[in-house]
Amino acid sequence: MALERAFDAQLEDLKKLILVMGGHVEKSVTKASAALLQKDIEGFGEVHEIEKRINEAQIAVDNSCVSLLAKQGPVARDLRLILSIIKINTDLERMGDQCVNVAFTGKDYLFRQSPNDLKDIAKMAELVKQVIKQSLDSFVNRDVEMAKLVLLTDDEIDELKNKVFKDMILTMKNNPQNIEASLDLILIARNFERLGDHATNIAEDVIFAVTGRDIRHGGKYK
Amino acid sequence: MALERAFDAQLEDLKKLILVMGGHVEKSVTKASAALLQKDIEGFGEVHEIEKRINEAQIAVDNSCVSLLAKQGPVARDLRLILSIIKINTDLERMGDQCVNVAFTGKDYLFRQSPNDLKDIAKMAELVKQVIKQSLDSFVNRDVEMAKLVLLTDDEIDELKNKVFKDMILTMKNNPQNIEASLDLILIARNFERLGDHATNIAEDVIFAVTGRDIRHGGKYK
Repeated sequence: MALERAFDAQLEDLKKLILVMGGHVEKSVTKASAALLQKDIEGFGEVHEIEKRINEAQIAVDNSCVSLLAKQGPVARDLRLILSIIKINTDLERMGDQCVNVAFTGKDYLFRQSPNDLKDIAKMAELVKQVIKQSLDSFVNRDVEMAKLVLLTDDEIDELKNKVFKDMILTMKNNPQNIEASLDLILIARNFERLGDHATNIAEDVIFAVTGRDIRHGGKYK
Repeated sequence: MALERAFDAQLEDLKKLILVMGGHVEKSVTKASAALLQKDIEGFGEVHEIEKRINEAQIAVDNSCVSLLAKQGPVARDLRLILSIIKINTDLERMGDQCVNVAFTGKDYLFRQSPNDLKDIAKMAELVKQVIKQSLDSFVNRDVEMAKLVLLTDDEIDELKNKVFKDMILTMKNNPQNIEASLDLILIARNFERLGDHATNIAEDVIFAVTGRDIRHGGKYK
C-alpha cells in the first residue's frame, strides 16, 4: 500500500506539473497576442522568457513519466493517463514554439507600421486562448464533453484562418507596398491555427485517457 | 525466459512497424514533390492514399506501445526505446499531414500555371527526403552519428526556406498577378521546413533512446 500511495502521489505531482506547463502556454499566447494587438514591441520579450520555462517543464514531465513507468509498471487507467501526458507534453512544448513564432513575426509586423486591420487576428487569439483553457480544464476534470467543445471551436479557428488568408491576398493585390505586412498576418494566422490544432490533439488525448477510445482519424465519440 | 522472448519479439515487431510507417512517409514526400515538380496533378492523389496507411499505422504503433508497457513493465534501455517510439510515431503521423498540405497547396499552385522557378523547392524536397532517410536509418542502426547529421542538414533546409521566402516576396512585388502562386510556394517551403523539423525531432529521440541523454533545448551531445 505504501508503494501505491507513493505512486499516486507522484502521479498527482505529474498532473500538477503538466498544468503549470499549460498555464505557461496560456500566458504565452496571451502575452504574444496582447503585444501584437496593442502594438507593444517590448511585450514580445516575455514570450521568449516563458518559452524557457516551458522547455524546462517539458524535460521534467518526460523524466517523471519515465520514472513512473520504470518503477511502477502501471496498468490500464493510469497507463493511459501517463501515455496521454507524454503526448500532451509534446503538444504544449510545440505550442510554446508557435508563440515564439508569433512573437518573431509580430515584431516584424509592428516595425512595418502597416494599416492592416487586426480584428480577425484578435478573434483568432481569443478562440485560441479559449480552446487551450478548455483542453486543460478537460484534462483536469476528466471532462469528455469539454474536450468535445475544443474540437468544435477549433473549426471556427480554421474558418477565421481561411478568412485572413483571403483578405490578405486581396490586400496584397490592391497594395503591393503592404505585401510583407500581409504575409506576416498570414503566417501569424497559421501559427494560431497550429495552436488550435495542438489544443485539439490535447482534447483527443484526454478523451483517450478517460474513455480508452481513440477518436483520431475519424474515429467517432458519441 | 519465455516471457522475455515474447517481449523481445513484440518489441522487434514494433520496430518493424515504425519503419514501415517511416517508409510510407518517405514515399509520401517523394510522391508529393514529384507531382509538384513534374506538374502532374494526378500524382497528388497518391499522397492522400498514403496518409490513410500512415494513420492506421499510428494507431497500431500506439496500441503496441500500450500493450508492451502494460504487460511487461520494461525498464531502462527498452523503456527509453518505447518512449522514443511513442514520440516518433507522433512525428511520423504529422509528417503525413504535412505531405497532404503540400498536395493541397501544390494542386492549387499547378492550376495557377505560374512561371515561378521551382529549383529551390526541388532542393528542399531532396534535403527533406535525405533527413527522413537519415533519421530512420539512425533509428534502425542506433546510430548517433547519423542522427547528428540530421541536425546539420536541417539547418540547410531552414536556410533554403528563408531564401524561398525572400525570393517569393520579391516576385509578389514585381508581379502582383503572381501573388497567389508565390504564396503557395511560401506555404510549401514552410511545409518542407516542418518536415525537416519532425526529422530533427526523430533524430533527437534516437539520441535519447541510445544514450539516455536529452539534447533538446540546447542540451549538448558530443
